Amino acid sequence: MIDMRNIYRQYIFSILFSLVIVAAHAQTALPLMPYPKEVQLSEGKLYLTEETSLSINGKYSDRLSKEGTQFLRQLVEQTGLFINQSKVVGAIDQATIQVQSLAVGQVEIGEDESYTIQIDQSGVKLNASNDIGASRGLMTLLQLVQADSKGYYWPHVAIDDEPRFRWRGMMIDPSRHFLPVTDLKRNIDAMAAVKLNVLHLHLSDDQGFRFESKVFPKLNSLGTDGNYYSQEELKDIVDYASQKGILIVPEIDVPGHATAILTAYPELGSKDTTYVLERFAGIFDPTLDPTNEEVYVFLDKLFAEIVTIFPGPYFNIGGDENLGKHWNESEHIQKFMKKNGIKSNHELQGYFNLRLQKILAQYEKRMMGWEEIMIDDLEKSALIHSWKGAWEKATPKQSLYKAAAEGYQTILSNGYYLDLMLTTESSYLVDPAPKADNLSDFQRSNILGGEICMWSELVIPQTLESRLWPRAAAIAERFWSPEEIKDVEDMYDRMDHISLWLENFDLKHISEPNRIIRKLAAGHDTEPLHLLLDMVEPMKGYTRNPGGTMYNTFSPYTKWVDAATADAPGARAFNNQVDCYLNSKIGCQDLKPVLESLAENHDQIMKIIADSPSLQEIQSLSANASRVASLALETLDYLETNSKPKSKWFVDAKDILNEASEQGGRTELQVISGVSDLVTALEGEVK
Amino acid sequence: MIDMRNIYRQYIFSILFSLVIVAAHAQTALPLMPYPKEVQLSEGKLYLTEETSLSINGKYSDRLSKEGTQFLRQLVEQTGLFINQSKVVGAIDQATIQVQSLAVGQVEIGEDESYTIQIDQSGVKLNASNDIGASRGLMTLLQLVQADSKGYYWPHVAIDDEPRFRWRGMMIDPSRHFLPVTDLKRNIDAMAAVKLNVLHLHLSDDQGFRFESKVFPKLNSLGTDGNYYSQEELKDIVDYASQKGILIVPEIDVPGHATAILTAYPELGSKDTTYVLERFAGIFDPTLDPTNEEVYVFLDKLFAEIVTIFPGPYFNIGGDENLGKHWNESEHIQKFMKKNGIKSNHELQGYFNLRLQKILAQYEKRMMGWEEIMIDDLEKSALIHSWKGAWEKATPKQSLYKAAAEGYQTILSNGYYLDLMLTTESSYLVDPAPKADNLSDFQRSNILGGEICMWSELVIPQTLESRLWPRAAAIAERFWSPEEIKDVEDMYDRMDHISLWLENFDLKHISEPNRIIRKLAAGHDTEPLHLLLDMVEPMKGYTRNPGGTMYNTFSPYTKWVDAATADAPGARAFNNQVDCYLNSKIGCQDLKPVLESLAENHDQIMKIIADSPSLQEIQSLSANASRVASLALETLDYLETNSKPKSKWFVDAKDILNEASEQGGRTELQVISGVSDLVTALEGEVK
Repeated sequence: MIDMRNIYRQYIFSILFSLVIVAAHAQTALPLMPYPKEVQLSEGKLYLTEETSLSINGKYSDRLSKEGTQFLRQLVEQTGLFINQSKVVGAIDQATIQVQSLAVGQVEIGEDESYTIQIDQSGVKLNASNDIGASRGLMTLLQLVQADSKGYYWPHVAIDDEPRFRWRGMMIDPSRHFLPVTDLKRNIDAMAAVKLNVLHLHLSDDQGFRFESKVFPKLNSLGTDGNYYSQEELKDIVDYASQKGILIVPEIDVPGHATAILTAYPELGSKDTTYVLERFAGIFDPTLDPTNEEVYVFLDKLFAEIVTIFPGPYFNIGGDENLGKHWNESEHIQKFMKKNGIKSNHELQGYFNLRLQKILAQYEKRMMGWEEIMIDDLEKSALIHSWKGAWEKATPKQSLYKAAAEGYQTILSNGYYLDLMLTTESSYLVDPAPKADNLSDFQRSNILGGEICMWSELVIPQTLESRLWPRAAAIAERFWSPEEIKDVEDMYDRMDHISLWLENFDLKHISEPNRIIRKLAAGHDTEPLHLLLDMVEPMKGYTRNPGGTMYNTFSPYTKWVDAATADAPGARAFNNQVDCYLNSKIGCQDLKPVLESLAENHDQIMKIIADSPSLQEIQSLSANASRVASLALETLDYLETNSKPKSKWFVDAKDILNEASEQGGRTELQVISGVSDLVTALEGEVK
Repeated sequence: MIDMRNIYRQYIFSILFSLVIVAAHAQTALPLMPYPKEVQLSEGKLYLTEETSLSINGKYSDRLSKEGTQFLRQLVEQTGLFINQSKVVGAIDQATIQVQSLAVGQVEIGEDESYTIQIDQSGVKLNASNDIGASRGLMTLLQLVQADSKGYYWPHVAIDDEPRFRWRGMMIDPSRHFLPVTDLKRNIDAMAAVKLNVLHLHLSDDQGFRFESKVFPKLNSLGTDGNYYSQEELKDIVDYASQKGILIVPEIDVPGHATAILTAYPELGSKDTTYVLERFAGIFDPTLDPTNEEVYVFLDKLFAEIVTIFPGPYFNIGGDENLGKHWNESEHIQKFMKKNGIKSNHELQGYFNLRLQKILAQYEKRMMGWEEIMIDDLEKSALIHSWKGAWEKATPKQSLYKAAAEGYQTILSNGYYLDLMLTTESSYLVDPAPKADNLSDFQRSNILGGEICMWSELVIPQTLESRLWPRAAAIAERFWSPEEIKDVEDMYDRMDHISLWLENFDLKHISEPNRIIRKLAAGHDTEPLHLLLDMVEPMKGYTRNPGGTMYNTFSPYTKWVDAATADAPGARAFNNQVDCYLNSKIGCQDLKPVLESLAENHDQIMKIIADSPSLQEIQSLSANASRVASLALETLDYLETNSKPKSKWFVDAKDILNEASEQGGRTELQVISGVSDLVTALEGEVK
């Protein structure tokens, strides 16, 4: 039988360590994300009622009319109010919410997305130069809804808002694991909710070619396992994104990452061989042959087909991670290089890129690519995507600043790779162009913004959203909000709030991890698993999948690690409270209840594991967590009683902490730093 | 801090009060649903490993090849095993799972769906006459996976299975609230998972016409708010269902329920007026004019278009709830009736139906309709859908048995209206043709089976699944399994198990109610809300929406009531344990812990309500629940100490119970019967 005290312990735990009230931190006054440029909060509340209505005035816009209707729908479900008006009313001055938009905006980089909001007792006034700005403002209005015991209300406020960066992107990779259209659309909704404006689709890679080519049908029949986007579907996605003021940038990754293309058309490869679709993760050898004129004929025809679907000005040709092993091994390629004075593989890829730039110019498309495409002769119309950093033994942002200095427009992704499962803090504090950095005005003008990247080697449609959200909202804030908005604890408070709000867009970022845990609990109470899960994070960076071979495309991806998120909420709260305690701050919470729960938790987990073999991989993790919690409780006892354990005790303590650092179920315990701090403090006192 | 945990509290109570171990009840030995016709369980286990593989032999079938691949995918995610084989291997005798299918089945009523499974130490053998039967067997195999501390395994077992009824349907209504294609597909997956074989799409009603008509485009532009299925999408759905061995039956409801049609083409109506799309629920007056030849020209052209999309033999013309008020009011219709000797509106509708039957015969379609279409002259090829019962002041199954006696094929839906939110038990015990009923062999041969109905007046895509599932699985069992499988507690045990399993098909039946509660909790711990939610059920039948006017199409549908399910798990367990206690059975659980929690719960709920105005509607419900729990605790104290309260105490007790019977937030407390039983028992002891 379940001990009901256990339930209340959890209840206590969630209150213990949390700050329910947003704006407990100084920097922001409202739970908005991205936080607007200027917010002036006044006394006073405008309550929502069943009579609340919305009018749209100014230049007629189909986009804004639809967004207005969806806004009302959201407002109804968000508040549970039976609002009479289900649709936007005409240009009526009596409406509660009066939107004024002066033009129909274009879905392009640099379009005006500004808006102002004025809320007082007379109602809500949302003004924008165009319908895209007005749509951004509607999302702010949804986030602005507050509640008290009298009802739902908007605070009296004046907001003046516009984005800091023009390019606020998200890259999604449906190549490694295919992502159905519906899931894409749901994420487009969420992108718009946090004011992102570019969706970069990585449509081809070693594991699959996802654009339906009618000209080269083998790209789909042989270059996939059957999953790809039809041209109709892609047109539909472009329209859907356009409705939300979001530009789609397609990517066909060449000359490397081309196994799928070469599986279909091996004659375009640099090696005379057959190719098979890649099932693992990593950097592979297959690469197009830049000396083969047929390659350019092929790409010209393919690009001609692709540009009919994507009306935007950018076309991404990838260009990353081409090591050129097959180039080195090819006699005729070596001969070609010698004959043409090409001295390195990098130069050869430069030659290839210049050819592609000419092809794309025919279609009035600007070439975009990963930073490797940058060579001396590249035309300045190219857009450079800076991505390398510490994992690649490069200096972060080096290519960004270099490209900007050389006159290329450029965007940053290093620091924003959400698939690496680093903490939100680590991404949030990366700024594409901080004031402190010594950049010229020219450089600054070329830095368009940044892009979140979500590579999908270890992600399936079910789990994508819990890897993306809510962290993407914090990065969206980095791209949109003033540089000065960067208090980390304040961000976490608001992100927790926005995470719940994002569920209104049907995102699965909370529900799917919960489902995984229900599955793993195999009919048992899920509480012990959640208690432990809250203390762990997936292995970081590329360590979860050593050599890219532990997992393949068909491995299971709804295991323990897939339920864990990048910011273990329990551990974060615990470590913060340790800091509070050790620095004798005011208002610290008692550390013991959660430690006591955790110390007892392993026995519960073992009962679940007995019926759930899939969880055997976390047995040592769970044991370590309980052991570390017990150690922390002992340490607190010593600290509180001013007693002094023997030095052997410290040796043992460090052994326990060391052992507990080992992964379990591809996750790592995150309370170790807090407990270490306690032990270190005790050691200090003892000395 | 936001409560990121999502505790499926139902399982707390299942553990508290129920017997989690399936087969604790005598009737079934394995957690399967629908339960197979014959199951012979042996000692022995066949463990799954990374080497587990699947081969398909016999007649090649594209359907079975795809189902096999999906089966392996499910097996991987269900067990977390890194199974090497991601695809079906060829006809290899060494495979762990050897499927043998002798033919490609047809998606039609009466097709052989039988299969046998033999599992022993040598492996799994699944045999079927055709690929549809084999696919049904694969679902049984997924449900059969068990676990112990050594791993996942299949028990050694011999299964011989086939359906009891040929027609095992589900009706979904995308007219009242539109249901996107993706949601339909997910439910088709779930239907196949529990061996349902007919999806009946209610494509038109007063609130919207959802079939894309290229011949009559106003049906979509004026007859909807913009949401309808394109012909391409419907073809895709037909194919998708066919892959799963499921037949689609389209319904265009005429002559009544025709407001959407008449909004587009008012000239076809019986009254010279204009029409507007209906926003409320109920039976409305607009109806086609059966005396207008243009109506038949219109329907002929429309049906000609529809039959090109749906290859199945059945076409449902609705025909229900046409009261004929406008017929009574129309001079020319009355004249027509007199001239043709038509004596009643029922006869006039009979004339209309006969005309439609002739139109459909041209396209080789059999007419199907709700029971009102049955008239004397109707050709026996028509299929009668029996639906009326106590709510309609009719005798349940009367029309079913009458139709069958008259030689019409017929199916039953009375008792299977899941939108009425009656308990699973009430549906489960309805049998379309029980042995005990005095039916002729001829009648029995005409009763094809039954259909679950899910009307969507109060349902949006987000909440559909928690209204449908897992209850639909229990009804599927009624349609498929032997009549004798009907132990209610055994069914509930297995349904709890299957409910979790169904989440593997991405159904939202658990996650969405949890999301609603998270939203309503507004950042507070969700536990107090779940504790109360587990004790309530939505108002039953048509009482939730009095007069059909409390809600309209645009009302909020993610409120408290929309999170509640039809079988309050906590209340069901509590009432069972009261029964156990009062009848001095063995192994009863202590009633007090849950009562103590509930008694204290109201204070917690009040704290949440202060921040969540949408919950103000449950304030009295919550107070009542706590009061009733306190009353039960008092009663138990008296019973246990053999003390005797004064008669005034009983008067007060009944007042408390009476008051607590009132709805709150459109839900009703379900522990009252258990507490009443306790009070009555005390009263008896006192007397």
